[in-house]
Amino acid sequence: MKKLMILSTGGTIACTQTEDGLIPTLSADDILGYAANAKKRWRLETRTIFNLDSSNIQPEEWRDIAREVYACLPLYDGIVVLHGTDTMAYTASMLSFMLKNVDKPVVITGSQLPIGHPHTDAKLNLRHALLTAASGLAGVFVVFDHKILLGCRVAKVRTTSQNAFESINRPPVGVVRAGNIHLLAPPERPKGAPELDDAIEPGVFLLKLIPGTRPEVFDDIARLGYRGVVIEGFGLGGLHCLRRNLLEGIQKLLDAEVAVLLTTQCRYEPSDPTVYETGRLALELGILQAYDMTSECAVTKLMWVLAHAKKPADVKRMMLTNFCGEISLPRADQHALAQ
Amino acid sequence: MKKLMILSTGGTIACTQTEDGLIPTLSADDILGYAANAKKRWRLETRTIFNLDSSNIQPEEWRDIAREVYACLPLYDGIVVLHGTDTMAYTASMLSFMLKNVDKPVVITGSQLPIGHPHTDAKLNLRHALLTAASGLAGVFVVFDHKILLGCRVAKVRTTSQNAFESINRPPVGVVRAGNIHLLAPPERPKGAPELDDAIEPGVFLLKLIPGTRPEVFDDIARLGYRGVVIEGFGLGGLHCLRRNLLEGIQKLLDAEVAVLLTTQCRYEPSDPTVYETGRLALELGILQAYDMTSECAVTKLMWVLAHAKKPADVKRMMLTNFCGEISLPRADQHALAQ
Repeated sequence: MKKLMILSTGGTIACTQTEDGLIPTLSADDILGYAANAKKRWRLETRTIFNLDSSNIQPEEWRDIAREVYACLPLYDGIVVLHGTDTMAYTASMLSFMLKNVDKPVVITGSQLPIGHPHTDAKLNLRHALLTAASGLAGVFVVFDHKILLGCRVAKVRTTSQNAFESINRPPVGVVRAGNIHLLAPPERPKGAPELDDAIEPGVFLLKLIPGTRPEVFDDIARLGYRGVVIEGFGLGGLHCLRRNLLEGIQKLLDAEVAVLLTTQCRYEPSDPTVYETGRLALELGILQAYDMTSECAVTKLMWVLAHAKKPADVKRMMLTNFCGEISLPRADQHALAQ
Repeated sequence: MKKLMILSTGGTIACTQTEDGLIPTLSADDILGYAANAKKRWRLETRTIFNLDSSNIQPEEWRDIAREVYACLPLYDGIVVLHGTDTMAYTASMLSFMLKNVDKPVVITGSQLPIGHPHTDAKLNLRHALLTAASGLAGVFVVFDHKILLGCRVAKVRTTSQNAFESINRPPVGVVRAGNIHLLAPPERPKGAPELDDAIEPGVFLLKLIPGTRPEVFDDIARLGYRGVVIEGFGLGGLHCLRRNLLEGIQKLLDAEVAVLLTTQCRYEPSDPTVYETGRLALELGILQAYDMTSECAVTKLMWVLAHAKKPADVKRMMLTNFCGEISLPRADQHALAQ
């Protein structure tokens, strides 16, 4: 009988209705009370790390969760992390970097409706998360609405529906149909030993452009001591240089040794600043490309990389390294990097 | 024979390959040269307003485009605006507000590949745009990849594929199949006379949250003189208040009479900050809700509203007014507003 750990961090799955709106109050053990059959199938243990609305989960909590998961790794066959949906994609990405060479399933799940709600999706998600945790897969996953998704590729794309999450620019790892896991694109098993590597630099700013964004914003970012900026440009990675010249602002950031990464505000498909003139000019200044990484992943990876590399060349090398399936480079760029 | 005007603003459709990447160089007349059959079917005139990569289209250009379109309205049966895809959603939203009670089709289109490219989507999009411009519909539309979309509901969701645009939280107006328009959800015809209303306040900042966003950013937004902020919160509209208390930052903005609107970073489905505690607290402070408006629409509408209303109550009333199909409120909220 497989031995699984359920770690709870709060979220809607743990919520009850109060006068102030939904607030997470249930413990991991309370939640497990709704999954009586699971106790017959697996040896289950629970622990409540904290009980937070995931909008309040921030770098400090990422570290707490990573450490708890890492401590559980040698003791269990798989680990389920219950988490709110709002920042689940960010946590899933960050855990993918903090927990290197994970050799067991680390499965994050939650729900759009509280586990006590008559129409809840929590019981199904919990059941599928346990099934995935017992599957022998290796890596950090999000399990939601019958899908098993690679943690570093996940995005919350719907505010309300049960199919809230999608795998961006990568097929899902698998699906659960009638209680059975069907693998579609499982990740490779890691080669090294598991390692906790939770040093991060939280000083990263995300700037989503709009027409007319003023370059002065970059002065403030530099002044506030940020060490990295992720810019969500237009389309393939466009940014304006007419009148309000964002390239000048970016140059100032680079001069101040702030790492600048350009990605897209389009939800699907990779960015590619090499196609148009302004993107090319930005690349010539020394910005980094996101390729097919999600914004959620680009932000968390940059936080993690900036705690591991100081020189711009090292930051670049690490940002373009594929650590956990989060990025795929066109063949020509892979070749250039290898040289 | 219907008389149609084609206004060109540049974009990929007008691009040719140069050593510096793709640059818009073709005039509206050059582009029409690729649509020989269209000249037999309609009386076509062209005018090149400017030739810009749409990443460079900003508030000044919106006004130029709106004025050109407005001047053409009484003279033509329909107007096609050729535009780059990168900021097309923003322009389409803004034109929907600047051009009130448009009684003819104003159809924005463009392409993912230049019109001279062997695999271009430009010819198809141009043909469908002309067909829509001759359709007698009333409103601002985006026509792209066989779909007719309401301008204020459009978002670019894919960086590369031909189905780059989607209608968010509203069905498409129609589709074009085998050269025929099939209407699915046409907008109502306006009741008043067409009006050019192009006053906008470009001082609006878009802040997409990440876990750990520091509230100091709001001090800078206030100091730089912005009059409005759109916050893309987590999920239904969550924001953190633990350690880095964003609510305190928002309070400072509201004290400085900056309008603050909360929306979601999820691409699909409405935001609703009333469900969870932090969202409710933000609403109590006096932030505005986006309901089912896109971010692109929320940003452009707030710019437009801030040039028309000064008092917070008037800004709120206008932001919740449905001007062109951009917002739908739950029945209970409609009722409360009417009182």
